[in-house]
Parts: sequence; C-alpha cells; structure tokens
Amino acid sequence: MQRTYISDLKDHVGTEVSIGGWVSVRRDQGKMVFMDIRDMSGTVQCVVLPSHTEALETVKEVRTEWVLEMKGIVNKRPEKNIKAGVANGDIELEITSIEVLSKAQELPFALDAELNLDTYFDHLPLTLRTERARDIFTVQATIVEAYRQSLRRQKFMEFQAPALVAGDAEGGGAAFKVEYFNEKTAYLATSPQLYKEIMVGPFERAFTIAKIFRAEKSATTRHLSELTQMDFEMGFIKDHFDVIAVLEQVIRDVVSTVKEKHTDVFTRFKIEAPLMPEKFPVFTLREAQDLIAKEFDRTVEDTRDMSPEDERQICEYAKEKFGSDFVFITRFPTAKRAFYTYADPADPDFSLSFDLLFRGLEINSGSQRIHNYDQMIEKMKSRNINPENFSFYLQAFKYGLPPHGGCSTGLERITARMLELANVKEASAFPRDLTRIDNPLSQ
Amino acid sequence: MQRTYISDLKDHVGTEVSIGGWVSVRRDQGKMVFMDIRDMSGTVQCVVLPSHTEALETVKEVRTEWVLEMKGIVNKRPEKNIKAGVANGDIELEITSIEVLSKAQELPFALDAELNLDTYFDHLPLTLRTERARDIFTVQATIVEAYRQSLRRQKFMEFQAPALVAGDAEGGGAAFKVEYFNEKTAYLATSPQLYKEIMVGPFERAFTIAKIFRAEKSATTRHLSELTQMDFEMGFIKDHFDVIAVLEQVIRDVVSTVKEKHTDVFTRFKIEAPLMPEKFPVFTLREAQDLIAKEFDRTVEDTRDMSPEDERQICEYAKEKFGSDFVFITRFPTAKRAFYTYADPADPDFSLSFDLLFRGLEINSGSQRIHNYDQMIEKMKSRNINPENFSFYLQAFKYGLPPHGGCSTGLERITARMLELANVKEASAFPRDLTRIDNPLSQ
Repeated sequence: MQRTYISDLKDHVGTEVSIGGWVSVRRDQGKMVFMDIRDMSGTVQCVVLPSHTEALETVKEVRTEWVLEMKGIVNKRPEKNIKAGVANGDIELEITSIEVLSKAQELPFALDAELNLDTYFDHLPLTLRTERARDIFTVQATIVEAYRQSLRRQKFMEFQAPALVAGDAEGGGAAFKVEYFNEKTAYLATSPQLYKEIMVGPFERAFTIAKIFRAEKSATTRHLSELTQMDFEMGFIKDHFDVIAVLEQVIRDVVSTVKEKHTDVFTRFKIEAPLMPEKFPVFTLREAQDLIAKEFDRTVEDTRDMSPEDERQICEYAKEKFGSDFVFITRFPTAKRAFYTYADPADPDFSLSFDLLFRGLEINSGSQRIHNYDQMIEKMKSRNINPENFSFYLQAFKYGLPPHGGCSTGLERITARMLELANVKEASAFPRDLTRIDNPLSQ
Repeated sequence: MQRTYISDLKDHVGTEVSIGGWVSVRRDQGKMVFMDIRDMSGTVQCVVLPSHTEALETVKEVRTEWVLEMKGIVNKRPEKNIKAGVANGDIELEITSIEVLSKAQELPFALDAELNLDTYFDHLPLTLRTERARDIFTVQATIVEAYRQSLRRQKFMEFQAPALVAGDAEGGGAAFKVEYFNEKTAYLATSPQLYKEIMVGPFERAFTIAKIFRAEKSATTRHLSELTQMDFEMGFIKDHFDVIAVLEQVIRDVVSTVKEKHTDVFTRFKIEAPLMPEKFPVFTLREAQDLIAKEFDRTVEDTRDMSPEDERQICEYAKEKFGSDFVFITRFPTAKRAFYTYADPADPDFSLSFDLLFRGLEINSGSQRIHNYDQMIEKMKSRNINPENFSFYLQAFKYGLPPHGGCSTGLERITARMLELANVKEASAFPRDLTRIDNPLSQ
C-alpha cells in the first residue's frame, strides 16, 4: 500500500491507509495504547485497540523514537475529543497492523526536556528532531533560499567561492592552517571577498553562499569557527548606498518570505516577526553614538567602532522611534575597516562603509571597495601587506575593474536574530567552536 | 543620466543613453574609432566620430579591458552594415562623451586567444571574462539552482553541512589535516554523508550543496582537491531504486532547465544538449561489462568496478542503442563501496548501490544505506573502523533511523560533461589541485 503523509490523512477519513514515522509519545490507557506518530509532514494520534491482537502484541515493545510502518483506519474523533486549532486534532488513526522498521534505545532524556546547551549539542543527531530545532532549520532553509532568489531577481550570478586559499588574507592568524600537498601550507578562507571582487570582472553582479572559517579564540554567544556567509558584490556603483539599496531589498524579501511561510514558527517561539518600516533607518556612526549617549544617558567609550552594547541600544532606539528591527550604521573610520575599503574622497579618514544591525546584532558588513590598481597597491603597502602575496587577486584590478562594492550576511546570525535565539550556535546545525567539533574536544 | 544595459539599447533607438562596460575590442578606421563594449547583459558596437572632439581625445588612450562610462545616441545601422542573427547587430552607439572609470594595463594575451590550461588558470581574474568562461559559469549557476529547485519540489529540506570534521571518515589519508584550536587536529570533510544521514532523523528528506576536499594525489582530468557536491538523502525507501527515481527526476529537471535557458551556449560550444529517453537505461555492473566485452570485442580487466574506459564505452553503447547520454549502473560488489552501503539481503556480496554515468563519466554515486544500529557497528568492525570514532554519527542510528538512501552529484563533473569540457578543472572557477591554489605552488 502506498504511503500516505500524515498531513494528508484528513483527506482519507473512513479509509485504510499506510503511514511511516517516528513514535513521539506513547501512552498506555487500560488495554489500549496511544501513540503520537511524527513524519516529515506532521503528527497524528494513533490508537491500538485490544481487538487488533497482533498489533497490540507488537506495540507492547515499542518505545519513543522507534520507526514504524503502520496500516490503519482514519477515524473522525468524537466531538468531545477534538483538539481545536491543532493539526489532525479532529482525527485519529486506528491501527490495524504494525511493522517495526527500526528500534531505538532508551533516550537519554525526553525529547521535549529543557536541556543546557552543551547537552543539546552533544546529542544533535537526536535533539535536531525536536520541534524547536526543526523550526530553526526550516526557517534557515527559507532564509537562504529567499536570499538567493532576491539576488537572482536583482540580476546577480551565483558562483562557488573556494574554501582553500593560499594565504591568511587578513593576517593576524585569523585563518586555520591546512597541511596541503608536498608539505605546503594552505589556509581556510576567512571570507570570499577576493573572489567575489574578481567575479565583478566577468559578471558585474555576483553572489556566493560560502563557508568561512575563523581561528579567533572567541568564546562568546556571537562566534562560531565555521560559518555560512551570504556574500554579494556589484560593479558600476555610485557609492555604498547602491549596495545598501540592494541589501535592503534582499532583507525585505527574506523577512517577507519567512513571515509568509512560517507564522506558525513565530507563534511557537512566542515572538513577533521582524518590523520593517518603509525605509530602514540609517545613522552615521557618530550620529548613532550621539543618540545612544543622549537617549541612554551614558558615555560611549570607543567612538571608532560600535560595541555590542552600542548595537543593542541603537536597535532599541530604532525600534521605538522608527518601528524598525533593522538599522544601518555608516561612516566607520577607514582605519577600522579592511584594506580594500574605499575611503571617502572628501574625508579620507572615514570610509564608504556600513553595518546592518538586526535586533541588537551586526548581521551584515559592507562597503564600496577600492577599484584602482595603483591605489590598491599603495593601500596594501600602507598596511604592511605585501602585494606579491595578492598577485592573483590584483590581476582583476590590473586589467580594469569598475567602481564596486558589496557586503556579507552571516546566515547563522540572521537566523538567530530572526528567531531571537540567545546563542548564535543554536542557528548552526553542527556548530564548531573552541571546544567542539560534533563531540566536545578533549582538553 | 540613468545607466542603460546594453541588451536594452534596441528599445532606445534615436535617443541619448548612458552605458557602462569594458572595452572588448578597439579598431581605428581613419579618424574614427570603433569599440565593442561589453557589460553583464551584452555587447554593442560603439563609434567615436571626429566631430566629437572631446570624446575622440579621450578615446585615443583607451585600450582593451578599460572600463568606461559613456553617453551616446543609439543609431540604426545602414542596411549593408547589419549583422543578422547577432545581438545588437542592427544598431550602433554614436559616442558623445567618455568617462574613464578604470584603466587596464596591456593584456598578456588577447582575450580570445587559444591558451594552454596552465596559462588560462594562472590568469583567471582575466580569463574568466572570456565568453567561454562566462558561459561555463552561467550554465553552472543554472545547474545548481535547478538541482535545488527540483529537490525542493520533491519535498527535500536544504541544510548546511560542515566542512570541518573531527576525523578522517574514510581513512587512508584522503582527508586534509587542519591545525585546530589548542593543538588539536581537525580534518576537512571528504563528504557530507554522515551529516545528511543524521538529517534524515529530523527531516526525512534533506539535501546540501557542500564543499568537500580530497587529499588524494591524483593529477588526472577528473580530479580536483576542492569540489562542490550536491547531496541528498531520503528516508522510508524500499530500496535504492527509490533514490534512482528521485535522482532521475532531478537530472531531467536540470537538463531541461539548461536546455531552455542556454541553447545559445550549446550553439557556441558546437555541441548538442544531452539526450534523455523516456527512461534512463539501467544495467547491473555485470550486464554492463558483458555488453562492453561483446560490443567492443575486448576483455574487461576488473569485474569488480567500472574503469574509465568501461564508463566511456557503456555510455557510447547507451547513446547509440537507447538515445541516452545517461546510464545507471547498479549492483557493485559490497566490498568495493563505503562501509555504510546496504548489502543486498538476498546476495550480500552485492550492494544496493548505483553510479550514474553521463557522457562517459561517473557524475553521481549512491545507494541504500545500513539503518540498523547493530548491523552498522558490526559492519564498522569488519572494516577495522572504530565505532568510538563515530559516536556522534551513531546516535542517529541508536535512536531510530528508517531505511534510507541517497546520492551525491559532483557539480564540476556534471558541468564539465554538460558542456563537454575536456578537463573537469575548467568547470571550477578557482580550481585547486596538486600544483595550484590560484597561483602555481612552488616546487
């Protein structure tokens, strides 16, 4: 018999069907056994009645997370047992036969138990099955897809950026070393930056969803050592506001798609969908910090960059005053940004750069870039970067690159803020950090 | 003035427009200067007439790959100068002003020159701008997008598989070592296999587009050290033919989409679009090798696996007899496949596995997998794999996993065969191999 998905059972009332799924819950009630069975489409209550002796015999042994293939009759529930507003709350499957596809050992904890994060991560092959985890990664799949679709509509070409690179582009040991062939050392990319700039040459507008790797010893709720970045780069811009315009459209498309497809997730997480006004508010760094100082009556310590507290407070302000969960911050000091960042020709101490903050956290960073070859060489030298180490990349500039800019969104960060997760690691299905690759690393 | 894309110029005949782009070709003819200008949308012939003295002065210096912003009048060409069948072959842009956005140094070779592969790879920031390279990566972007769309329609959930892993899953030193934190060694993933099987637990049907890394010292036209794999895995299967059915649908969708969007590329590459009959032919390994022996009158040396020559010949046969550029080969010996491969219960020496060949090359490999925990442990031990090293992965089995299977398509390989590229490296925008990461590695 063809398998019926659990979400389709309501269309089969009164007939016999076959389903497959996991036992989420098992309850014994007198001689009857009730089970909540879960498949990729939903959950349904099943009952094994004493009259079905063979099924009853099989079910005796069945426990949580066993995988079953079962036949049964879809029954309407009596009025008094209907659970309103719950999917399949008005039906029940009367099981006629059970085949055990896979047994499960006793679980180390109930799947709906509150766990500390380490226990949760230690058991991801199990805990990813919780409704909460499935919600997070269902939303994440929608985010990444909506991000791509929006860029594709805006005429960007997707490409595959490399993860293995020849040098530590940013210096300072932020890159992991790889033992490459013939005793050569390679590195893991800390950004697809150089490659997406190269791709402006052939395609003008290019994007990549790329893994990047950070060897920084940061053990905060904001850091992972392996991340998924959603990067785009575009040519023939006037300045960084052209990049901001594309990004704002992308974010609108992402949020709208998530709202449209996953209202149920926002309900289950007991949070609101992100607020977006007609236009996202934009402040210069200076304006933002002046506002924070005034509104929160405090001294801003570092006027060269936004601290985590600055980010939280300007977001709080923007939400209240502008009804926006998003804020752009512009005009960061040139010295604080990467070497390829374009300085404002009218005031070279400041750069044509920006960050996008979302619910208190920087989720995107971008800028116009230097496009002139000589200027790039000069800038590298002023930063003690040896242009010879960048000879491959520099060909793009040597052979004519238009004014261009771009930005990079952290997938885990945007997912975490979308669902208001306390720790960005929860937004990585298989998080890697200082102390963990799947299992905890021995000390 | 707003920029007009070159592909839209035909709608602006008789008016003044502004364009931006690269100089593909420059030709002087008496006092006039002709240029072919290229942007992301197309190419147009521009002419600077002696009457536009300022533009003529500027253009004197202009060479190939300079980036220009220009104003001009869109003119119909006189009848005798129309190039039929060429985009913009019936118009010409009469330039009124030129702004140089970016100069280019003299090119090391003409962009349309025939290059040997090493020279081509040494200069990718330039050579990716050739029409041929843009065609390859435009088709590749379509392939990866169509692959995802097809799986999404078939109810697969996308997830991000990790690149950093704790162990060398396949053993034999096929994995690159990474210096992780605190003097720990991590490895680069050789496959997302373990993670997609884990994802069957939460989602039943999961897919990932993942980077994988191979430290094998193979310097053939079929090998790269960094690859993009398109992997899916599905639960509740009867056997590997359920996987084959999903894959065949995916491949049909990919080929149809590429055919629909890029007939011009097939024309430029002087090749046919791939042939697909009603149903892809399926042979067991034994059948395939018997056919080869008979049809090509030769002895098959290794009856345990397909050699590159076997792959080419069975594809030649399938194309001729069945009008198919695709062939499935099944029933590989269990001993020749990865440890997680499901042996045929009726004949355990053979596995429920398959390869998909495309125009002479294996582009996909898949199988039903072991789903029973005890059986998995036993199999690991029989292969001298220590289950303790797989304790994270094994949780998925310990806590109930349905019969499942999946497969993996190499993006570079399918791209290479789609366009009949001689070397798979040409299908990687930034190929890494034994001797190259961007630049050649010093010996």
